[in-house]
Amino acid sequence: MNPTIVYCEGAFNTTNGKTAHGLVRFTERFDVVTVIDSRYAGQDAGAVLDGRPNGILLTANLHDALALCQKKDRPAHDFVIGLAPDGGRLPAEARKVILDALEARLDVYSGLHDYLSKDEVIRTKAEKVSRKLTDIRKPPPINSLHFFSGKIDEVKSLRIAVLGTDSAIGKRTTAWKLVHGFREAGHTAELVGTGQTAWLQGAKHGIVMDSLVNDFVSGEIEHAVHETWLDTHPEVIVLEGQGSLLNPAYPGGFELLAAGRPHIVILQHAPRRLEYDGFPGFPLHPLSHQIMAIEVISGKKVSAITLNHEGMKPTEIVGECRKIKEQIGIPAYDVLEHGPQALVNLLKPNLKKRHG
Amino acid sequence: MNPTIVYCEGAFNTTNGKTAHGLVRFTERFDVVTVIDSRYAGQDAGAVLDGRPNGILLTANLHDALALCQKKDRPAHDFVIGLAPDGGRLPAEARKVILDALEARLDVYSGLHDYLSKDEVIRTKAEKVSRKLTDIRKPPPINSLHFFSGKIDEVKSLRIAVLGTDSAIGKRTTAWKLVHGFREAGHTAELVGTGQTAWLQGAKHGIVMDSLVNDFVSGEIEHAVHETWLDTHPEVIVLEGQGSLLNPAYPGGFELLAAGRPHIVILQHAPRRLEYDGFPGFPLHPLSHQIMAIEVISGKKVSAITLNHEGMKPTEIVGECRKIKEQIGIPAYDVLEHGPQALVNLLKPNLKKRHG
Repeated sequence: MNPTIVYCEGAFNTTNGKTAHGLVRFTERFDVVTVIDSRYAGQDAGAVLDGRPNGILLTANLHDALALCQKKDRPAHDFVIGLAPDGGRLPAEARKVILDALEARLDVYSGLHDYLSKDEVIRTKAEKVSRKLTDIRKPPPINSLHFFSGKIDEVKSLRIAVLGTDSAIGKRTTAWKLVHGFREAGHTAELVGTGQTAWLQGAKHGIVMDSLVNDFVSGEIEHAVHETWLDTHPEVIVLEGQGSLLNPAYPGGFELLAAGRPHIVILQHAPRRLEYDGFPGFPLHPLSHQIMAIEVISGKKVSAITLNHEGMKPTEIVGECRKIKEQIGIPAYDVLEHGPQALVNLLKPNLKKRHG
Repeated sequence: MNPTIVYCEGAFNTTNGKTAHGLVRFTERFDVVTVIDSRYAGQDAGAVLDGRPNGILLTANLHDALALCQKKDRPAHDFVIGLAPDGGRLPAEARKVILDALEARLDVYSGLHDYLSKDEVIRTKAEKVSRKLTDIRKPPPINSLHFFSGKIDEVKSLRIAVLGTDSAIGKRTTAWKLVHGFREAGHTAELVGTGQTAWLQGAKHGIVMDSLVNDFVSGEIEHAVHETWLDTHPEVIVLEGQGSLLNPAYPGGFELLAAGRPHIVILQHAPRRLEYDGFPGFPLHPLSHQIMAIEVISGKKVSAITLNHEGMKPTEIVGECRKIKEQIGIPAYDVLEHGPQALVNLLKPNLKKRHG
């Protein structure tokens, strides 16, 4: 893994920084040394984000970031855009920093819709300094894409989908926690990613759903799950959801339910969130309504709620989980706070049913 | 309108011919003289499709089609691919006929995913003979696309969405019938198309949903509806649905419900269809389940069922509509067989409520 600087100026610890958050929490693809956000310069990224220091320091700018990497004897090799603004456009300021990062001889990775490789100035610069540009969101050529065929039924793994009641609510983090939880419990498990961050974190299989041509979304989900099965025959495949069923701007999860055909559905929820992320004036549908939507669409019961504890005191979490269980009748877990083992224990009987 | 040949070899009167069917039934963009499908050569396209002759003769091949246009004194100017195969790939045989059509000095229109303009041989040929290639499905450049903003709430028109219980089931035809029905009843009405066929039929506003990058689907639907409102302030805007909510391969309609925010939902249904189109072994969800899915997702009641009478005798239609009304409690209409006026009459009170 290459020593890496993540750029997240002005957005760390906000919903627009979720790509950086993913990289700070966990990646098997990069050695993250520092995250750039001048608002938090000098602080520990793990401490800011989750209250748990992880040795990744925040820095104020590219100059400081490069210096820190040198000082730690892990000279920077890669520069990753950790911003995830609504719409995925490249901010003008970030563009300037990318040019500086190329000047400093770093490879640059971006998951934005504005492809670096289509930006004449950036491309010319990268060529001049012989550095690599990677547009994670750039879809494969159309003649390599797949349509839904029904081959999903050949996949013998227990398929678990992690959906959410909103976008930017922690579906991917919970999905990874589940994968690692099953592995720790002695089972083989793989993630099928559906966004650019899962790729950045090292998911071996998956798609970048939101940049795919719409007609191929179902087929590419099915294909990614099927490839995962062919590759290592894991006992468990966890599917990362996108958006949420009732979201006004990013209705998502339909294709995952239709083409991924999960056996188990988990729903990530933030009890303190009142409106859809990025859409003030659009109140979040009640949890019970969201559960009903999933059950009507998929024909499956929701097996568990996983909690996003934003806006809660640590002391409120256990009570909130209990309240959900009492009011909705579905067990609730905070896998970020308490780890995934209780949830893995809940789901394990389904594994036995499938694999004997 | 230019005299036009529609190519539908081997697929007319099948679900893979739905683009041709749309053009045969109605278009304000082309003067359709003939449809090529050797299996029906010499027959009337309207008679084959709907039991009502419309003067569009089927021909066996391009040679016969060109001759017929000459004979009718409407020399062919345009050549439209009327095939809509699952997946939208260009069949090898059709590719040859396109080269012949260019040689015969016709402009060529295609709504397939394989863009003509990306086919080196076809493009070179078109340049050589100075004829135009139009790829209807080719999306606008990414920097001209829109994200959802909530501006849909400024649109004062009564918004009616026509969803379906499957793909290729007649949503678009019913949507046009409704538009024309409202106009005949003295109201202003516009269609917002969501597929290539609606464009071919002359819809002034709309998108080609299935070729859009997934992240922009909601925003582009909202933008198309908003543009329609700004353009002529119609009393009614009818939204053409795509796919169906519970379809395994083409789950669709949820962006239309989320971003189009219809006041009225109509559901197109084929009582005799038992499995999803193109997916044998995937039984169609019951009508009542599909209605529940729409109501949970949209928070709106389904106002009417519109019938696709495939597989029925003409004498069975009235009884089938009555049966749906009795069993489901929602009125049912066959607008293709009986015209749209009864349905327009049902919906008109909503218009009065909005426009006083």
